[in-house]
Amino acid sequence: MADFELMRELQHKNTSKIVLLILDGLGGIPFEPGGQSALEAAKTPNLDRLAGEGTLGQVVPIRPGITPGSGPAHLALFGYDPLAYEVGRGVLEATGIGMEIGVEDVAARGNFCTLDSNGNISDRRAGRISSDEALPLVQKLDEIELPGVSLDVRHVREYRFAVAMRGADLNPQIADTDPQATGIPPLSALAEKPSSEKAAEHFNRWIERAGEELSAEKKANGLTLRGFSSDPRLPQFTEIYGLRSACIAVYPMYRGVSRLVGMDVISFDGDSPEQEFEAAVSHWDAFDFFFIHIKKTDSSGEDGDVMKKAKVIEDVDQALPTLLNLNPDVLAVTGDHSTPAKLKTHSWHPVPFLLWAPATVRTDSQDTFGERSCQLGGLGTFPATDIMPQLMAHAKRLRKFGA
Amino acid sequence: MADFELMRELQHKNTSKIVLLILDGLGGIPFEPGGQSALEAAKTPNLDRLAGEGTLGQVVPIRPGITPGSGPAHLALFGYDPLAYEVGRGVLEATGIGMEIGVEDVAARGNFCTLDSNGNISDRRAGRISSDEALPLVQKLDEIELPGVSLDVRHVREYRFAVAMRGADLNPQIADTDPQATGIPPLSALAEKPSSEKAAEHFNRWIERAGEELSAEKKANGLTLRGFSSDPRLPQFTEIYGLRSACIAVYPMYRGVSRLVGMDVISFDGDSPEQEFEAAVSHWDAFDFFFIHIKKTDSSGEDGDVMKKAKVIEDVDQALPTLLNLNPDVLAVTGDHSTPAKLKTHSWHPVPFLLWAPATVRTDSQDTFGERSCQLGGLGTFPATDIMPQLMAHAKRLRKFGA
Repeated sequence: MADFELMRELQHKNTSKIVLLILDGLGGIPFEPGGQSALEAAKTPNLDRLAGEGTLGQVVPIRPGITPGSGPAHLALFGYDPLAYEVGRGVLEATGIGMEIGVEDVAARGNFCTLDSNGNISDRRAGRISSDEALPLVQKLDEIELPGVSLDVRHVREYRFAVAMRGADLNPQIADTDPQATGIPPLSALAEKPSSEKAAEHFNRWIERAGEELSAEKKANGLTLRGFSSDPRLPQFTEIYGLRSACIAVYPMYRGVSRLVGMDVISFDGDSPEQEFEAAVSHWDAFDFFFIHIKKTDSSGEDGDVMKKAKVIEDVDQALPTLLNLNPDVLAVTGDHSTPAKLKTHSWHPVPFLLWAPATVRTDSQDTFGERSCQLGGLGTFPATDIMPQLMAHAKRLRKFGA
Repeated sequence: MADFELMRELQHKNTSKIVLLILDGLGGIPFEPGGQSALEAAKTPNLDRLAGEGTLGQVVPIRPGITPGSGPAHLALFGYDPLAYEVGRGVLEATGIGMEIGVEDVAARGNFCTLDSNGNISDRRAGRISSDEALPLVQKLDEIELPGVSLDVRHVREYRFAVAMRGADLNPQIADTDPQATGIPPLSALAEKPSSEKAAEHFNRWIERAGEELSAEKKANGLTLRGFSSDPRLPQFTEIYGLRSACIAVYPMYRGVSRLVGMDVISFDGDSPEQEFEAAVSHWDAFDFFFIHIKKTDSSGEDGDVMKKAKVIEDVDQALPTLLNLNPDVLAVTGDHSTPAKLKTHSWHPVPFLLWAPATVRTDSQDTFGERSCQLGGLGTFPATDIMPQLMAHAKRLRKFGA
């Protein structure tokens, strides 16, 4: 992991600008034997030019062989060893939509579900109801009041919402109520430690009240909760590296993890790569570091659609001049993990990494951006937590260690 | 090192099959300047095809620059950092021939030697007496009885035997009695800690009695003991990875280390690669993981015979279809360490590594199996303890870490 004490000791401020461009789930494997990955198949003249002018490598997100979830994968990109720093899904989701989760609050991620006449789950996502359908239901849930605690319920997207509970002596060691199966009822909120019993009781009372509110619904007549968690009080990215840091991301979870490490989350209209890069243009002067997150590489990989994934990468490539016109001093392009379309899921494979820093880079022999060229890149294979120290170095923001 | 807690937490069972094929001492260096290593010189159409369809890398057995013994090298292959887990040579040797060594027993490896009329060692290996000559002597030693302890002496091979002592309060911190030189007498068993004095006294009494039994012999009229050790109580491989695991090996030591980590040792006839692979065929359904050990790559390397080492590799290559016909999901081919014929001994050089896993592999640009192609392989250079997590990942036996 990035040695935070060393970073704090060596970092100093200057006027350089660093961009960390994350294409979620970027890495792939050949879709057919002897074939190409999405990144290799995509036509990417701009990225290929940067690969030629810069240097490549491949990144191990957590540990060799370990497939990361999105939360731990992003912590690692920011220099935090995810085995040392754990962040619950509830806090990530709630923080991502702008809720403030304190150290003693407990947040959970909620899903609407459909229950049959026996109270068993028949659809774990309530027929994927639309945001328009879900919003009034979330409003109903938000109006529930319980003695001794205050509650905040907010809509996330489609059938998903977040709930935060505030009160005295609440602890988040509570098992998910989502049984991850249909044909059985949702579980009760079960305390995994005695200190969490009080919070579990409150949540069970709330679940009962929520069930009454939803009972007349056809699709969303039930709910499940998971990822009960509190603010993990992470060391702050901005302070460790001395960087005024901005997050540009469409999806709540990535905004959430950025907020937890102390970044400012930039609001902007639209969800295209071009619009995300325009957001960087609008806020260029106010920040030293820009974390820009593109989601659709991952979702197209999870859909198993290698051509769509290639198209998303091409869209990013086409929009790239908007970012390059800002003349960043250091630009890194990589992913948080691999999502090979062939496997339709996150995977453990190392992630292609491109570093472009015209003033300081040691170029290598590669001039295209792809899995095979990154295997032969000048930076070798290295852990994700080593990214930030290298970006800091190329931004000339780290002093010499020792005399 | 493989994070055992993480493995235990993430592993789940499925029907996949993993084969770890170890060619002992596989790695080499060019025998002549500008020349080839044994692996590069060998004609290996099957391994080359696997290299093309799979991916390559190179493995650091212990730490860069550290030449491993066979015991630590194999522990590392199984995911155990040999600097954290130490297994004595005596226990390895004794366990390898099927002796049960308990936590409070002390085992040692024994060599017959020749003593001159002054009691000084004239041949440390008793003229390499044959197994037929040694067996009745071992029988005599096994009949020695001492008050307060029970003893078990068994023949290993040629001039080598193993001795196990059982009793109360025995501790194995005892220095070798082999002075590693001729012209001087064997050393007494010397306790390195006060707690081992009792065991050392018993061993000295036994050595005295053994000397009397052997005094009439011409070649094997003396003995030395080394590697005093007890069962190290290693965490169990089978439990860490959730794999029903089999060892297929000709030599006792490799069976020993496999048994110590909890693998089942398969008995079979013969000692050729083909016969070892046939043993895997016979037991294919009963296990999830097969550790198959080929010894002769190492011994031909130690003999400095580069052509013989290449021939052994060719024999393995020719027998490989027997293994491939089983359709393993994951096959790794590597060594426990390098034994360059030019150096005639184990060395610290990284070991060529081949990973073949048709459903999940990210192919690289290499299509032959050799030291130079492995240096350019897609997996880069990585510690041996990272092998198992990667094999588990490709077998789809690890869940995602975090949400």
